[in-house]
This record gives sequence, C-alpha cells and structure tokens, in this order.
Amino acid sequence: MSEHNGERYTVGIDFGTLSGRAVITRVHDGEIVGEAVHAYDHGVMDRVLGAGDGRTLPPDFALQVPDDYRQVLRHAVPAAIEASGVSPEAIVGVGIDFTSATVIVSDDDGTPLCETDRFRDEPHAYAKLWKHHAAQEQAHRIVALAAERDEPWLARYGGDLSSELLLPKALELLEKAPEVYAAAAQIVNAVDWITWQLTGVLGYAAGDSGYKRMYQDGTYPSPKFLAALNPGFATVFTEKMNAPVLPLGAPVGGLNATAAAWTGLREGTAVATGNIDAHVHAASVNAVRPGQLTGILGTSTCWVVPAAEYRDVPGIFGAVDGGIVDGSWGYEAGQSAVGDMFDWFTANCVPQHYIDDAAAAGMHLNDYLMSLTRDQEVGESGLVALDWFNGNRSILIDSDLTGLVIGQTLHTTAPETFRALVEATAFGARIIIDNFEAHGVPVTDVTAAGGLLASSTIMQLYADALNRPLAVAGVAQAGAHGSAIHAAVAAGAYPDVVAAAAAMGRVRPDAYRPDPDRAARYDRLYAEYSELYRLLGTGTEVMHRLRALSREAKAHRSGA
Amino acid sequence: MSEHNGERYTVGIDFGTLSGRAVITRVHDGEIVGEAVHAYDHGVMDRVLGAGDGRTLPPDFALQVPDDYRQVLRHAVPAAIEASGVSPEAIVGVGIDFTSATVIVSDDDGTPLCETDRFRDEPHAYAKLWKHHAAQEQAHRIVALAAERDEPWLARYGGDLSSELLLPKALELLEKAPEVYAAAAQIVNAVDWITWQLTGVLGYAAGDSGYKRMYQDGTYPSPKFLAALNPGFATVFTEKMNAPVLPLGAPVGGLNATAAAWTGLREGTAVATGNIDAHVHAASVNAVRPGQLTGILGTSTCWVVPAAEYRDVPGIFGAVDGGIVDGSWGYEAGQSAVGDMFDWFTANCVPQHYIDDAAAAGMHLNDYLMSLTRDQEVGESGLVALDWFNGNRSILIDSDLTGLVIGQTLHTTAPETFRALVEATAFGARIIIDNFEAHGVPVTDVTAAGGLLASSTIMQLYADALNRPLAVAGVAQAGAHGSAIHAAVAAGAYPDVVAAAAAMGRVRPDAYRPDPDRAARYDRLYAEYSELYRLLGTGTEVMHRLRALSREAKAHRSGA
Repeated sequence: MSEHNGERYTVGIDFGTLSGRAVITRVHDGEIVGEAVHAYDHGVMDRVLGAGDGRTLPPDFALQVPDDYRQVLRHAVPAAIEASGVSPEAIVGVGIDFTSATVIVSDDDGTPLCETDRFRDEPHAYAKLWKHHAAQEQAHRIVALAAERDEPWLARYGGDLSSELLLPKALELLEKAPEVYAAAAQIVNAVDWITWQLTGVLGYAAGDSGYKRMYQDGTYPSPKFLAALNPGFATVFTEKMNAPVLPLGAPVGGLNATAAAWTGLREGTAVATGNIDAHVHAASVNAVRPGQLTGILGTSTCWVVPAAEYRDVPGIFGAVDGGIVDGSWGYEAGQSAVGDMFDWFTANCVPQHYIDDAAAAGMHLNDYLMSLTRDQEVGESGLVALDWFNGNRSILIDSDLTGLVIGQTLHTTAPETFRALVEATAFGARIIIDNFEAHGVPVTDVTAAGGLLASSTIMQLYADALNRPLAVAGVAQAGAHGSAIHAAVAAGAYPDVVAAAAAMGRVRPDAYRPDPDRAARYDRLYAEYSELYRLLGTGTEVMHRLRALSREAKAHRSGA
Repeated sequence: MSEHNGERYTVGIDFGTLSGRAVITRVHDGEIVGEAVHAYDHGVMDRVLGAGDGRTLPPDFALQVPDDYRQVLRHAVPAAIEASGVSPEAIVGVGIDFTSATVIVSDDDGTPLCETDRFRDEPHAYAKLWKHHAAQEQAHRIVALAAERDEPWLARYGGDLSSELLLPKALELLEKAPEVYAAAAQIVNAVDWITWQLTGVLGYAAGDSGYKRMYQDGTYPSPKFLAALNPGFATVFTEKMNAPVLPLGAPVGGLNATAAAWTGLREGTAVATGNIDAHVHAASVNAVRPGQLTGILGTSTCWVVPAAEYRDVPGIFGAVDGGIVDGSWGYEAGQSAVGDMFDWFTANCVPQHYIDDAAAAGMHLNDYLMSLTRDQEVGESGLVALDWFNGNRSILIDSDLTGLVIGQTLHTTAPETFRALVEATAFGARIIIDNFEAHGVPVTDVTAAGGLLASSTIMQLYADALNRPLAVAGVAQAGAHGSAIHAAVAAGAYPDVVAAAAAMGRVRPDAYRPDPDRAARYDRLYAEYSELYRLLGTGTEVMHRLRALSREAKAHRSGA
C-alpha cells in the first residue's frame, strides 16, 4: 500500500446517463479531495445513429457509444487526480458505479462489436442504455412464460419485469439482430464491462446480476425456460453470460497497463466490483445495515434497504442477496415520477407571473412555488394528488396507472397544486415504507440523497409527511463517493463495506425533523391518499379503461 | 292596440347582475329592432356600502341599490326605443326578467327602506343580490327543520335549499336586523318589485314564487313551521309576502304615469308578470312545450324543461307548476361551475406561450386551446375531469364536492386538460338529462343559449358528448327577447306564451349534429365519467373529508 503524508485515497467513478464523474476520496474519513466530470461525446443516441452512418433509429431506442465511457477514464480520472493534488502512488483503489442494465455486446477480449468494421453501422451492436425500451414485447413474453411455468425467481421481482432489464434486451438481440447475437462472445452489463476494461478480468457484480439478470440463489433462469422463449436462447447464459458473480466490495483484479496509462493510476491498483448507480448511495450515506432505508430522489426515486432475512414483499422492484451490501438481502422499490413530474408541472401548468416573480426573487421556480404555500396549514388547499404520472412502480407495479388531482375549487392556485404533487410523492414513499414494514422488512431510519435535496422546503415536507426524521447525504456526489468507499474495501483498507461506510460515509443525521402538529395533520391527509390509492389503484378499472381508450383512439387516428 | 305601419312591438327588459338591457321586439315575428344597455351605477356592493356611509360589509354580502334598476327604465328603455325608430304608440307591452331571488324590503307603496333616512346606512335595507350568501346558517336551519318535520314542499327542491333563496334571506333579516324587518311592509323579490314600480300593482310572478319562495300547491310553508324556526317569523307570509301569485304571461297591470314618464312608453301599456332571467330563455328559443330542454350556458349552467305531469325527480333544483310556462310543470336543474371553471383554468393553469399564440392568432384563448386538440380523437388524452369546482348542484345537491382531473401523464398538455374540463361540463349536463328521463320527465330536444354559444367548437363537443342534436338561440340577447315575448302575451297579441314563442321565438334547430363516430367514443368516455361520478360523489367520503380537513386547517391557522 502506498502512503501520502500518511494518507491513502481511492477513486470513485460514477457513470451517469450523460457524463461520468470521478472523485478522489480520503480513505480514513471519506473526505472528497478532488473531482472532475467528463461528458459523453455522443450522449444518448435515440433518433439517429450519430456514431455510425447516421441512420434513423427505430422507436424506443436509446443507445450509447462504449468508447465514451473509456473517455471518462482518460479524462475525468486524471483531471480529478490533478485537482486533488494527490500522488497516484497514494491512490490504492478504484470503484465504479454505472447506470444499471446498460448492456454491451463484445468479442472475447471485451471489444464492443460496434467497434468492428462489420457492425459499425448496426444499432444493435452499440450499448443499449437503461432506458432503451425496444424490448417491451420480449419482456412481456418472459413474464408471461415465467408466470405460466411458476418460475420461482419471478416473485423476487414483484411478479413483473421491466423491459429495461438485461434478459429482455438479450432476447431482443437474438430476435432482431441474430447476426450480432451470433457474433457476440459476451452480452455484458456496462457496469461489468468497465471493470473488465480496467483489469482485463471479467467478473459480474452481484448487485446488477441479481436485480437486472435474474441471478437468484446462485443460478440463472433454466435453459428449459430459455428454450421455451426461443430455441436459440437456451444457451444464452452458458455461452454468453458465463463469468463468475462476485460480491460487492470484492476486487475484480488489478488495474492493467492500458487502463493505468489512461487514468494515470498505478498498474495493479485494486479495482472493486461495480455498483448500480442508485444502490451505491447507501454506502456514501452510511446506510448499509438492515433497516436503513436510502432514497435517491431525482427525476424518479429509487428506495433501497438492506434486510437481515428474506421476506416475500409484494410490489417491490427486486430482492437480491448481497444486492446492496454483501451479507444481507437488498430490497429495491421505486417511484416512477418524482422530479420529472415537478418539471412537467412547471413546464405545463404555471402562469407566467409566477415564473417572472421567481426570477425576480432569484429563486428556483420549485422553491418559489413552495414558498407561496408556506403559510398554509397542512390540508388547507383541500387537494390530494396521485403521483402516477409515469405509472406506479411500487407497490402496484402497474405502468398503465396515471395521475390524479382531486379537490379543486375555483380558488385553487398553481402553487397549491404543485405542493399537492410534492406531497403525493412523499405519500407514495410512505406507502413503500409501510409496505416494507407490513411484510417483515423493518425500516429503522430514512436517508435521502439525490437532486431533490436542493430544496429544503421539499425535504422538510417529506419529514412531516413521512412523520419520520430524515437524514440527508453529506456530499453532493454521493454516487461516486459510494464507489470510492467500495474501492477502499477492495483495496483491503477495510474488512467490508459496512466498516468502510461507517468510517467514510457522509451523512447529516436528523437533518429534518417532523413538526408534530404538521405530522399529525399529514397522518390524516395520508389516510385520504391511501384511500384514493386503493380506490383508483385496485378498486376500479377506470384508469386502465381510460388508457385503453386512449391507445385505441390514437390507433384509430393513425389508421384513419 | 296601437299600430305602426301595421306592426306592433313590445319591450323586453333583462335585469342582469351588472346592467340592464332593453330590446324592442316586433310582435308578429320576434325580430329585435332596437336595443340599449345601461350599467348599474353602484354595481355589486360586496365590500363596502358605497351607496350609504361607505361602511365595511360583513363577509358574504352582495348588495345592490334599487334605484339603479329604475335607471335602466329611465335610460335603457328610451335609448332602445330611439335605436329602433319605433313610435311608442306601437309598443303594446312590457316584459321583464330579473336575476332570481334578489330581494328588496320596502314600505307599503314600494319605496325601498334604504331610500328612507332611517335606513340609508343600514346594509340590510338594500337589495340583497342573488349571490348574497350571508344567510347560509338560516338556510341550513330551514332545511334541517323541514326534513325533521317532513315538510312536503322540501322534495320539490331536491331536499335542499340554497342560501340564495328568499326565505333564508328573510329569516336573516329578522335575526340580524330586526328593526329593518319590523319596518318592512313587504319583503319582495326584485322581479316583482320592478313590475310594482312599473304599474303600482304588486303581484308575485309564479316562477320566482315557486322556485325561490317555496310556493307550492297554492300555499307557502305553514305558520307552524315558520314559528318553529323563529317565533317572530310565523307571520312572514301573511304580513310581509301576501300579494297574489300571478301566472307567467299574465298582465300585472298597465304602465303608470311615473313609469311612462321614465320610459317614454304610453301610460297603460300592458306589463307582464316578471320572469327569472334564466327561465325566460325558453320562450326566446321557442322551447316551452313539454320535453323541450333549454340550457343557459354561462359562468354556471341552468337547465329548464317543461313537463306535462309532475314526477318526483331527485337532484333537481326545483319543480314548479307554471314555473317556466303556465299550464305545465317547470323543472330546473343546474351545474354550479361551467364558464367560470374555464376562466379559472385560463387564469391559473395556462403557460404564457399559449396566451401569446392565441393573441397572435386573434383568437379567444378558450377557442385557441380547443383548436389545439382539434385533431385529437375522443379519449386520446386519456383524461377525464369532474366539473364540481363549485360543488354539484344537480343531481347530487352537494356543495362540498370538489373537482377532479384523472389520467395525467408526463405528456399531458394544458389544452388537453382544458378540453377535459369542457367535456366534463357536457357530461354533467348528460347526467342531468339522463336523470330527468330516468324519472319520467322526457327530454325530446335540447336547445342551448347563453355565453358559451360564442364557441362553435365547444357547442359541437356538446352535441357529440350528449349524442343529441343541439339547437341554439337565434338571438344574442335571449333573456330580454324572451321577456318581450311574455309582454306580447300580456298585451293580448297571443293567447299564451306557447303561441307567442312559436311565432316570435328565434332558434337555429339542429345547429350542431353529433358526429356518429365521435358520439360513439363519447358514449364510452361518458361511462367512465359516470363511474367516477358515482365513485367520488357517493361511493366514498374522500371529498367531504378533504373539505372538512381544509376548513379545520383554515380555522386552526386563523386561531394560531
């Protein structure tokens, strides 16, 4: 191990949807001492194949260029090291996290097929980003067949699978681009591809494997099941997804010469197994013990909580042994529309004078709208909303549900409606928490991370509406920071992630405490939200029928 | 009878909330040949007593100055005559209509008490406009006692009474201003006060008496009932509301010398009993036979339909023998928020670019918003709204119900939401129509009048959503025009209002015909509206609890 004035450091690299960020973190206390960001040259390709021949892409495609990820290693890492003033000799580990279920097809040595002359203009040979939604039909078939055959793993995903997962994307590849499928030696999650690039060793991280590749109880879905989906698919795991699964925090290997040259780090530096970008926040906020719920509140919200024992919990997104931290079960649940619902509101429902006044006050419009109802008592507007503008991920797992606002009068204002939407997201979180606890997964404390932390008004509202104290992330870039903590474990600086997070995690405990009076009123408002949740979610088929009517109407118009 | 190149004319005077309008109408065919408007000097006094000492008014007051009504006679009538070029000799009758349940207290000869030195600064001595809502407590007590005592007349009003009616206002007077009550020789609806001023004869019009003064089957609520409300109230009908009730279309008397001088009309000209401003539209559009439903679509909507026989119809606003036209039962139902809900939306929910683009296109914002969804198929937005932003008058009679919008996604636009609100008002109308028919009151055809006619897009939507052809008023000022038709009957030019309306009514039959494809889709969307109507209107108490919570919250904040 190297030393640097007696200090050791790790680098955490967070691969997001549009850019990658590297942070240099001090091992003994988790202090971030340098950071840098590098934007992907090609961003997200969802209309044309910008990196190839510029061809128009089919609907629902969302592709990326794998070399853009390498550029983060070449640019952001050296820049972060330089910003930190730390000698590479003192950097003992590399940890990464990645958008989850982003999938790359490669040859035997990890070269993405899109980098070969044969497939340069083939969209299916590029990285399929998490939000590539063209495998919907395959996802439906996988779920239907698994349900029909009573596949035991299906319950671990709440009985349903997103089209974003790896298996639907692999089946899409087989069926839509069989020549690419045939040529692919590996179908690999980007989170594992990047550690392969860094080390020359291919190992699958336990987290992503469990949540996104149906790895449960040491096995994948059976060849029989796969063959029933498509005869050519029977061998997908044995032939194309056959690397060992490694626990989180374990080293994949040492930095190879190529990657050392890219990054400016020492060859042989320990590289940790990769993390799901959301889940790694739990390490950053030191919430890796059973019962510690972390919410990553952004455009959507991801809730993760470790549990000592497995319990069947309906309506979750996934339950994976070692999925958040090795040694406990990691539960994930989610809310499909949070920040993007607020953005929808401010873009589509706000008269100009509010926008002008917010600008004049130098305030973010969200904060300004919230400030206008600051003096209103809880429940005073008479409004309640259902936050299902993008379906309901947990706990109803129903993408055909839609939004609702109830209680309007001729005096209802835009700020009141905005607040009702914010409250709806807090109540949606409370449903998830109540559901965990009702099914034997305790939630002892709640920590928030993510973009929504920028609004203290919204955070206080969450504390009041959840009627729980709310801890918040202590650093802005909690993803990369959490990866740096994993790196410290891989480097042997700590025995496990729990110990590393205890030393290096950064959190403001009890940052927001519920006001007892407001919390009591929110209890009553939450009862109304819950009643509407039940009534519209499962008590009537109105939302489903309206969606069906809408689809039919669109089809009728297109056909006419 | 006078003649004028062989033609006779009548004058119809419509007393609205902010102004009065006179139209000169040709008796043989109903053609309007001249008109004039005069705005009330004092408008609506709802904050200070502008006409008295300027004192601040209590909450929910809405007062007017009776002499402002006389000014309409002095200015609008002569101006209309002049505009018409018709000789007063050729004008054979005067008809009026008035905002309903506007109440005046006067001495024996009709002088309003606010014109006496004693009561000049007494708010209760002024005209209480229909939307004076300070008698809410009295209305509640009247309803509760009537229900307790099984008073037979209560069912005629759907089991509930608005605080706007005459009886609550009279009880408010007794209890809040007993000295004014004691001094009042008459508590008289403005519609009757104005014919009293015109003729010197006090007679009560059957329509307003039935709908707003509980006159049913030839009697008023009993002295026993009144005494139980308040011992001093037992004699209110015998002492202060004791004039004869006259059928609509009948003459009250001839124009007296004073009113002849004001108006420039001949002394002795026949003056017809006064009409409720909404109901008189039925004569203007020649929809006075059983089954002919007229809607007056404005800020709110009033639906009136004559029926040959009495039927118990739940959820109506009133059923009165001779209430629309003598010889049949007049049914009234209503929607509490229509145009004012659209105005709420455009003021509170529309981004600036729509407003700018509407202005650039020279279009009313309502029409512009509607035009943006013109190409959308029925149901395509996936949205449905409940139009209860001001409670539900018919058929739920529940002022504590509120609005709802369901089906939002992150792609929902403001024009789509606006259209959903328009559709909700059409569906609300359809519920009323279906309810009439389900209870034995046939609706054979539907005619629309009122401000909403300005938008042909909205009218076509109504035809499609009702799945009925829609006739529309043939003249813009259908209120005053309807009054002129009643005047012709009072003058003896026609045997009754049915005959007069047949000759003088102006209507465009089948102005809007339902498109079969859109109507079929609206049938399905209406089924969803109906389901939500039932679910939220009577299937759950959520809206009521939210209202209660809101009231409590407001009280808590005021108290804090």
